Amino acid sequence: MAKELKDLANREDSYSQWYNDLVVKAGLAEYSAVRGCMVIKPYGYALWENMRDALDGMFKATGHENAYFPLFIPKSFFSREASHVEGFAKECAVVTHYRLMNDPEGNGVVVDPDARLEEELIVRPTSETIIWNTYKGWIQSYRDLPILVNQWANVVRWEMRTRLFLRTAEFLWQEGHTAHETRQEAVEETARMIGVYRDFAEKWMGVPVVVGHKTANERFAGAEDTMTIEALMQDGKALQSGTSHFLGQNFARAFDVQFTNRENALDYVWATSWGVSTRLIGALIMAHSDNNGLVLPPKLAPLHVVLIPIYKGDEEYASAVARLRELADELRARGLKVKIDDRDNVRSGFKFAEYELKGVPVRLALGPRDMAAGTIELARRDTLTKEVVPQEGLAERVASLMDEIQAAIFERALAYRDDHITRVETWDEFVRTLDEKGGFISAHWDGTTETELAIKEATKATIRCIPLDAEDEEGRCVLTGNPSKRRVLFARSY
Amino acid sequence: MAKELKDLANREDSYSQWYNDLVVKAGLAEYSAVRGCMVIKPYGYALWENMRDALDGMFKATGHENAYFPLFIPKSFFSREASHVEGFAKECAVVTHYRLMNDPEGNGVVVDPDARLEEELIVRPTSETIIWNTYKGWIQSYRDLPILVNQWANVVRWEMRTRLFLRTAEFLWQEGHTAHETRQEAVEETARMIGVYRDFAEKWMGVPVVVGHKTANERFAGAEDTMTIEALMQDGKALQSGTSHFLGQNFARAFDVQFTNRENALDYVWATSWGVSTRLIGALIMAHSDNNGLVLPPKLAPLHVVLIPIYKGDEEYASAVARLRELADELRARGLKVKIDDRDNVRSGFKFAEYELKGVPVRLALGPRDMAAGTIELARRDTLTKEVVPQEGLAERVASLMDEIQAAIFERALAYRDDHITRVETWDEFVRTLDEKGGFISAHWDGTTETELAIKEATKATIRCIPLDAEDEEGRCVLTGNPSKRRVLFARSY
Repeated sequence: MAKELKDLANREDSYSQWYNDLVVKAGLAEYSAVRGCMVIKPYGYALWENMRDALDGMFKATGHENAYFPLFIPKSFFSREASHVEGFAKECAVVTHYRLMNDPEGNGVVVDPDARLEEELIVRPTSETIIWNTYKGWIQSYRDLPILVNQWANVVRWEMRTRLFLRTAEFLWQEGHTAHETRQEAVEETARMIGVYRDFAEKWMGVPVVVGHKTANERFAGAEDTMTIEALMQDGKALQSGTSHFLGQNFARAFDVQFTNRENALDYVWATSWGVSTRLIGALIMAHSDNNGLVLPPKLAPLHVVLIPIYKGDEEYASAVARLRELADELRARGLKVKIDDRDNVRSGFKFAEYELKGVPVRLALGPRDMAAGTIELARRDTLTKEVVPQEGLAERVASLMDEIQAAIFERALAYRDDHITRVETWDEFVRTLDEKGGFISAHWDGTTETELAIKEATKATIRCIPLDAEDEEGRCVLTGNPSKRRVLFARSY
Repeated sequence: MAKELKDLANREDSYSQWYNDLVVKAGLAEYSAVRGCMVIKPYGYALWENMRDALDGMFKATGHENAYFPLFIPKSFFSREASHVEGFAKECAVVTHYRLMNDPEGNGVVVDPDARLEEELIVRPTSETIIWNTYKGWIQSYRDLPILVNQWANVVRWEMRTRLFLRTAEFLWQEGHTAHETRQEAVEETARMIGVYRDFAEKWMGVPVVVGHKTANERFAGAEDTMTIEALMQDGKALQSGTSHFLGQNFARAFDVQFTNRENALDYVWATSWGVSTRLIGALIMAHSDNNGLVLPPKLAPLHVVLIPIYKGDEEYASAVARLRELADELRARGLKVKIDDRDNVRSGFKFAEYELKGVPVRLALGPRDMAAGTIELARRDTLTKEVVPQEGLAERVASLMDEIQAAIFERALAYRDDHITRVETWDEFVRTLDEKGGFISAHWDGTTETELAIKEATKATIRCIPLDAEDEEGRCVLTGNPSKRRVLFARSY
């Protein structure tokens, strides 16, 4: 069984097979009977709950409230904002009927042809349209602004090639939709929320990210500006992990949302939207995990510590478990989530492998020698190191170890990421770096969509972002040699 | 404006108009552009979050974990469990296509006829089928049992006559789905969870409920037994507020979920399911509120205390607000959710009306005389009483007042409910009580579905439940005169 548990594909052989094995075997998620839709299993959902709760707290601390808008959007709404329809209204689940009936021929149920909707309903792929249609009724005056609303919801995009957490037909996310008096305020909100995402990625997930602007070509459909956080996975591919959009007055115009401003004149409302999804779970897995399984940051781990008795015979078992219960209570008193695995039908080697697979940050094993010596074996998941430590002061040691692990995971990912931002000057270097090393390539680009698409066509690399901290630097476009004023980050991506 | 705020229909004139006005004007919810779907506004959603968090804590305390299953269910799944299809697969949203395209004639977007699904997908009206299809992969042996899983999700039932929170096409809910080794264990789980719902309704919502079993006719489609909590609204109608179903082995048989039991034999798994929804918000509103607006129990109120300055001129304003900030900090230190309404463009009478409408349990108003005397005016929303109290010790007084209000709201609803359980012996009494007094009618029934339906046909009253605490009592059916062994509770209901 321990063999079977560890039977992941090797990360170095097939990263994508390793990833899929890991998601399934660690009990995070699996595919369902419905094409492209996943089941998020309890362990995966517990991780999502922790992520959601942390983000929700950050949203509320920045003045946002939650609300809930309909799952369905009338088809015609998508045609209102010209560029939005191009980007979003295509690969969608379409509801055409509202009733089933017994098959007259006795084969179960069939769609009732008489119950056809006058206008088809689209299962929301994102909610700008229905929300701005609603905001129209909420906003008359500048006194009604700002509206700072977030929604936690499921959305559906009919993806043809799916991958658990990273790209599924249905996924869970949050989408913030804010309405403002002025352009300036909306621009600031856009930046504030990408900052919240950066903090969450780095401080909670332990995943370093580059913050920047998308190019016009990579912008959200309907946005004037899209800001992004881009993370680097261990296979050298980038993962867009969260976006925040400055929508200008586009949706206000499309849904006729005007307000009386402080000068008593009518004006269109300024908008932002911003979202992260269960895709973040994919980022978390791919940034930290190894061939033994998940490596989870303590601030998000569903379980912090597992305690395992090592014993021969009933007597040793009973005394080890009794002592572990006392230690578990001390750990819980420090706010740690703790489990004693006292199953007596499973070998301890199997248990060790199982909790490594599940990425539990700390494992404590207590055997007869430890009982005599007042010690316990402490194993760290992130480094796979073990040491024998005194039981005395254990809770304090483990609690501070959590901070240490949280920091170490981030530092390791940061070192990897920083090692994988390569400055290149020539097209040869660009292609070779991409193929041999991967990661982000910092290069000059002439600023045209044409060049951007030519590079994508040639290499599958896209401009992940124009980093916020990009310095002014005269240079020559890596493909065309045309002049450029700053470097952008390219990468192949998920 | 205060006039407009209070412009609710009178509760005594038109209960349903009053209810709708209240939901909309208190900012809880409104209808959307999509027929039968509601928008839950921030104040309503904050209430739902408090309810969800309390329930979620109770589920976890009883050993349950959360997970997430697909929104869509293949149509054929509904035909698997014979009685389930009758009850659930009819008024559903049906997804038939997965792509839109630009209208060749240039009129926005149309459904792409080439993107027709081979098998239609149903937007989940409840998830027994997809979940039991999934459990099949999770369960081999008794060691895999029990599975104690809950899901928080949106569901869709295509209701023709909708009412905010009470009956909408889409609503939010939780659905627990558990799998057990033995009948006994599943029966106990069914009872445990209806007990959790009763505790939540009574201790958190302040709504007394009758716990009982549904008759065969009123059972959930596919259940062997349905337990229910039934609450009484102020118009004398009952509201089914939560149900817990013992599903026997029906879904395990339908989806072929067998396990190796302790005797090493194959057996079908035993199941329960249980759910409550945003309908509970409707119950909460209708159980407590009055012509001034909402009355919310402190344990669920999004806001506990509002503080309002009473002043003439800038100086009085500044000193009142400054003092209110100090008092607000003291209240927050007691864990109370507090807001100072320091708007200077709105009369205090308007503010009073607004927070009455929103059901904030306690209002504090501080004027110049109070400033001088070290007092403050404290108003209770539930009783609409006011008193002047010392600022000294205010936080402690308000904190303990929250418990008092919580208890008082429940006691008042309980007194009303107990006054409205009428024991009747004859059909005349039955009809007269129903029409003149309403509420629950405790009467003998001969146990046949035929009689149950005849009574419903004649009076619109249904059997809400066979109460758990119904005593053995020989009697005669109120309609047929046939023998009966215990009383059941009838009522008209939502």
